[in-house]
Amino acid sequence: MIFSSDNWAGAHPVIAESLVKATSGYASAYGTSDLDKKVEKTLSEIFERDVAVFFVATGTAANSLALSSANRPGGHVFCHREAHVNVDECGAPEFFSHGSRMTPVDGPLGKIDPVRLEAEIKRFPPGFVHGGQPMAITMTQATEAGTVYSLEEIDVIAHIARKFKLPLHMDGARFANALVTLDVTPAEMTWKRGIDLLSFGGTKNGCWCAEALILFDTAKASQMHYLRKRSGQLFSKSRFIAAQFDAYLGGGLWLDLARHANGMAYRLAEGIEASKGARLAWPSGSNELFVILKKDTAKKLEEKGAVFYDWPVPHTLAGSIAADEGLYRLVTSFATSKEDVEQFIAAC
Amino acid sequence: MIFSSDNWAGAHPVIAESLVKATSGYASAYGTSDLDKKVEKTLSEIFERDVAVFFVATGTAANSLALSSANRPGGHVFCHREAHVNVDECGAPEFFSHGSRMTPVDGPLGKIDPVRLEAEIKRFPPGFVHGGQPMAITMTQATEAGTVYSLEEIDVIAHIARKFKLPLHMDGARFANALVTLDVTPAEMTWKRGIDLLSFGGTKNGCWCAEALILFDTAKASQMHYLRKRSGQLFSKSRFIAAQFDAYLGGGLWLDLARHANGMAYRLAEGIEASKGARLAWPSGSNELFVILKKDTAKKLEEKGAVFYDWPVPHTLAGSIAADEGLYRLVTSFATSKEDVEQFIAAC
Amino acid sequence: MIFSSDNWAGAHPVIAESLVKATSGYASAYGTSDLDKKVEKTLSEIFERDVAVFFVATGTAANSLALSSANRPGGHVFCHREAHVNVDECGAPEFFSHGSRMTPVDGPLGKIDPVRLEAEIKRFPPGFVHGGQPMAITMTQATEAGTVYSLEEIDVIAHIARKFKLPLHMDGARFANALVTLDVTPAEMTWKRGIDLLSFGGTKNGCWCAEALILFDTAKASQMHYLRKRSGQLFSKSRFIAAQFDAYLGGGLWLDLARHANGMAYRLAEGIEASKGARLAWPSGSNELFVILKKDTAKKLEEKGAVFYDWPVPHTLAGSIAADEGLYRLVTSFATSKEDVEQFIAAC
Amino acid sequence: MIFSSDNWAGAHPVIAESLVKATSGYASAYGTSDLDKKVEKTLSEIFERDVAVFFVATGTAANSLALSSANRPGGHVFCHREAHVNVDECGAPEFFSHGSRMTPVDGPLGKIDPVRLEAEIKRFPPGFVHGGQPMAITMTQATEAGTVYSLEEIDVIAHIARKFKLPLHMDGARFANALVTLDVTPAEMTWKRGIDLLSFGGTKNGCWCAEALILFDTAKASQMHYLRKRSGQLFSKSRFIAAQFDAYLGGGLWLDLARHANGMAYRLAEGIEASKGARLAWPSGSNELFVILKKDTAKKLEEKGAVFYDWPVPHTLAGSIAADEGLYRLVTSFATSKEDVEQFIAAC
Repeated sequence: MIFSSDNWAGAHPVIAESLVKATSGYASAYGTSDLDKKVEKTLSEIFERDVAVFFVATGTAANSLALSSANRPGGHVFCHREAHVNVDECGAPEFFSHGSRMTPVDGPLGKIDPVRLEAEIKRFPPGFVHGGQPMAITMTQATEAGTVYSLEEIDVIAHIARKFKLPLHMDGARFANALVTLDVTPAEMTWKRGIDLLSFGGTKNGCWCAEALILFDTAKASQMHYLRKRSGQLFSKSRFIAAQFDAYLGGGLWLDLARHANGMAYRLAEGIEASKGARLAWPSGSNELFVILKKDTAKKLEEKGAVFYDWPVPHTLAGSIAADEGLYRLVTSFATSKEDVEQFIAAC
Repeated sequence: MIFSSDNWAGAHPVIAESLVKATSGYASAYGTSDLDKKVEKTLSEIFERDVAVFFVATGTAANSLALSSANRPGGHVFCHREAHVNVDECGAPEFFSHGSRMTPVDGPLGKIDPVRLEAEIKRFPPGFVHGGQPMAITMTQATEAGTVYSLEEIDVIAHIARKFKLPLHMDGARFANALVTLDVTPAEMTWKRGIDLLSFGGTKNGCWCAEALILFDTAKASQMHYLRKRSGQLFSKSRFIAAQFDAYLGGGLWLDLARHANGMAYRLAEGIEASKGARLAWPSGSNELFVILKKDTAKKLEEKGAVFYDWPVPHTLAGSIAADEGLYRLVTSFATSKEDVEQFIAAC
Repeated sequence: MIFSSDNWAGAHPVIAESLVKATSGYASAYGTSDLDKKVEKTLSEIFERDVAVFFVATGTAANSLALSSANRPGGHVFCHREAHVNVDECGAPEFFSHGSRMTPVDGPLGKIDPVRLEAEIKRFPPGFVHGGQPMAITMTQATEAGTVYSLEEIDVIAHIARKFKLPLHMDGARFANALVTLDVTPAEMTWKRGIDLLSFGGTKNGCWCAEALILFDTAKASQMHYLRKRSGQLFSKSRFIAAQFDAYLGGGLWLDLARHANGMAYRLAEGIEASKGARLAWPSGSNELFVILKKDTAKKLEEKGAVFYDWPVPHTLAGSIAADEGLYRLVTSFATSKEDVEQFIAAC
Repeated sequence: MIFSSDNWAGAHPVIAESLVKATSGYASAYGTSDLDKKVEKTLSEIFERDVAVFFVATGTAANSLALSSANRPGGHVFCHREAHVNVDECGAPEFFSHGSRMTPVDGPLGKIDPVRLEAEIKRFPPGFVHGGQPMAITMTQATEAGTVYSLEEIDVIAHIARKFKLPLHMDGARFANALVTLDVTPAEMTWKRGIDLLSFGGTKNGCWCAEALILFDTAKASQMHYLRKRSGQLFSKSRFIAAQFDAYLGGGLWLDLARHANGMAYRLAEGIEASKGARLAWPSGSNELFVILKKDTAKKLEEKGAVFYDWPVPHTLAGSIAADEGLYRLVTSFATSKEDVEQFIAAC
């Protein structure tokens, strides 16, 4: 009953197999091999346009490189207060962009409130140097709260980005989970809405280490090659990432895995809502659930072998949690079994 | 006949197999799994003391993080002029350490000349702010010229490092190749000589992606955790590196692979010296050879399927190469076959 | 009736005269002249201990260098939300310290709330790399709200700094104004309380350009010399700052000027409180007043030649300002005349 | 007999007087005052086109900001090996541009050899990420060797800059000294040749602290405002620099002062060439002379009160200096008197 994080799982067997296949034989290094090119082509097909693809080691690197490509002195990156770039990356975005600032914007359920976003941007009018200047907007899909922006919600953020001429980045660490929820195409959820840069994560959804930064404007790629290399993110045997993506994207495996993870979360949510001892803190749209449990219940679940994390209670929720209750996060993945889910529900 | 680089090979089957084994099951993320800890323990045994181990994505990252841990404003890192940090890392060491400077030192055969090293360090006396200040020394073992520092040569550099109280880093992208040449223990080639930080490379010697920064002073580890995370180099499913190292280090595989690569280079060198159409530019001690060929011969070899790189002629060699000759680099690896070597020799 | 800012005034005649005196004759450059040394000695006397003094171009530079000397990867600097470092320095502190983060702490009247400060620091427990790590605390005296921390209030902050082993910096852009309000010695307001680094500002109090970073731990000075030079802040003809400070500090001029500015603010406050058309938003302790005026009144005052700034209404004040009222900042300086003050009061 | 450096002199009386005049009265801060604008206008007239002017604290800051405006990841700035940016700025250019690299180019008499320059640039072909990429060229006028580039020599460097689409910066710490030597207009020596950015120094030529970064492409100014503020280089009472420049530029004082300094150097050179005990190391064109003296003679001169610096012997000169001789630098300034010059000559 491991619900701690989707990065506790290993790799999907098909992906491991693809790596083994790529083991033998020579290939040119630093992202120039046939397999690297094949994956870039596949991604261009999937996104229905030419894209520039940069494999990197981690989602943190993808996010930070994306933002550093928009770098401006005294720059502000507008993000949700709970965004990974703001709370979980140890200053990487600031380091990569030489001291730019993550400027948090509040909003319910992990989503940027567009009214507040515009108000925050307007705090930094052009030419008033003291406060710095707007530099980029980044949104997370699916969000850190497990929710999913609708296409219309993305449109609103993108409209603001265009209005202020700011590049718009999407942190897609759980891109596939959001995509299958919305049941739209990758293009519809990204560049057709106005997304300029995408952190396209495969690691949480069944790969070992498969993260890519995708640029929809391929003219920006030439400088990104230097930015990536300069940050120690250019793999020599780049094939080992390409091989993972090749299996991941081939035959729609990535969507199947995300559907499985979401399905497990859905079943878990159903069971929790039907139980006496647990309830959902808010509705989720992906493979992350936020659950309110009596602290006693949580303890007993852990004794029975369930693994999951305490979560800080957002102030918007403060009134609706009793003193003997806690907030907990449950994450499912491609590896989550029905048995684990049913066992957890039964124990609630 | 692929002699372009040791990073054109794939992974050794035993290493691929180890990855497959680690595919299933859950494990805690971010370097805290049992397998991660096992590898750290193995490395402590191999180095005969407690070491702090940091897996990273690339050798460039390992080198840059090592140097950034010694960071000083206006700092100079003294390195060989042909060192990877100086010519092949796109400013990563400078970026990671916020604008420190690689200050090149000349020396024959890829090795730092200790007399010149000391003279360079003395150009920056304490308190004279205009020129900046010494910050670290980095040496490469085996060197970029394929040669290997003897233990005595390392001692001399380490003596200078201690004299000026500078941390001493070793770029061990081809650590194993040097080690089997000297036939000493890892401890004897590093901390027993005075090495403080080591970039321990496994990728060029049979792994997919297995690079570790090793700190011999474990007290320095607490800040390195933050430096690594901040640069987007902390893998979530860190197991996938641990699994490679586990197989690589287990049963001495890493030394066997290095011995094979060096042996292939040795045989290639023998054959070249015995041939009419080729000669060695200088004696090598590892898996890299630098060969002088008639340009015609090089062209014919390439037509027969040999792959290798042109190399810039160092000025020390300028007089001994004819106008119709060129300098070429040949690199062997764990994957190089006897057949390829013999075929190349025959073609010379 | 110029109440816009204390940096709209010129220089005090005695300070200008001192500059003229230093005009002729040679002196060694880069802060090594006799006059430079004299000022450092004077400051050591004034602070009752050996201090290391670094002249810099601006308060922003003094603050940023102070914080960069405490630099840590993923570092958080805790400051008041309205602090100059947080809202008015265009990312300079982040730039100087390579991407550290200003982490704002709320508190009434421009002062850090110690309970919130401690809670914020505890969000970053040692070893949890994702969120980064505490790095320094900075407080402003007098604050941006015109208030002054009492000695006891400084003690409380300093106690927290010691508890978490964090260096404590004081932004003293208006140091003299706070000092004469508390009527204590410079030592009592700084290192005797636990302040480690001080931005000692003279510009706002009658100099042209006289800012110094003062280190109470002189052992830290050796690296600061490099940090300052590296940021282009080491003046060649450093005498021109020394000459200003020499006159500023000599005979207690600096305290007289601050007493004048504070006195003018006090008289202005009295007049405003007695008036019908204006009231103080909160009590001040220095040369800055925050005043609530009917917007009509403000407009009329401006038409009569008064110059002052609109100020954003803090949310704590939201309920107590009517729709037809605004918040305005009035700043007095050494150059403010009684006539201007009386004229302004009369016009209210 | 102070010939150590032109920054050992104080300020010219006319400049001091202008500062005193600006002492009283209010003016808006941060470079927006009438006097600031007047100086910008004067500089636009002097340069015969609209220029954007940024006052900064030091020449190091002007150079570093200029280069940081051209910043590229893995960027190389090509400069003369003895350039101030390369040997005397403690890594400031690297710090401001986040780890770019100063790549030295050799050339006789302090001037960049254009053939070598082009060869160096070609070492970094587009798209080959490992070595980084060209980013800017910077040249010094007058050079650190006291020589002056002719207009034709500037043309050649500018031609290379255009060919590789690199911005061309001129470090004009001794701009006036070069200008009066060439007897051309400021426009002819800069943008008419292809200079894009100019560090325009007044400090060494009679001001206290008057350095300006001048952009000939005013469209680049908007980002420079943020770059300057972010580095703590935006003066609040900016008038105090404007007042210096106002006097400096008014009535051609700056050219008169440079002519005086150069004239003194010329007379000194004549005297030295005619003397028995001293000779010029190479011909100079500005206010810096490099002189070969017997070490005994140097010692005696110092005993008689002459102050000047030892200078490192460039390797090109190695053969022409005897063991009992040394190389010394003599610098004249606006404050150098005929008496000092004659006294020095007599003592030789």
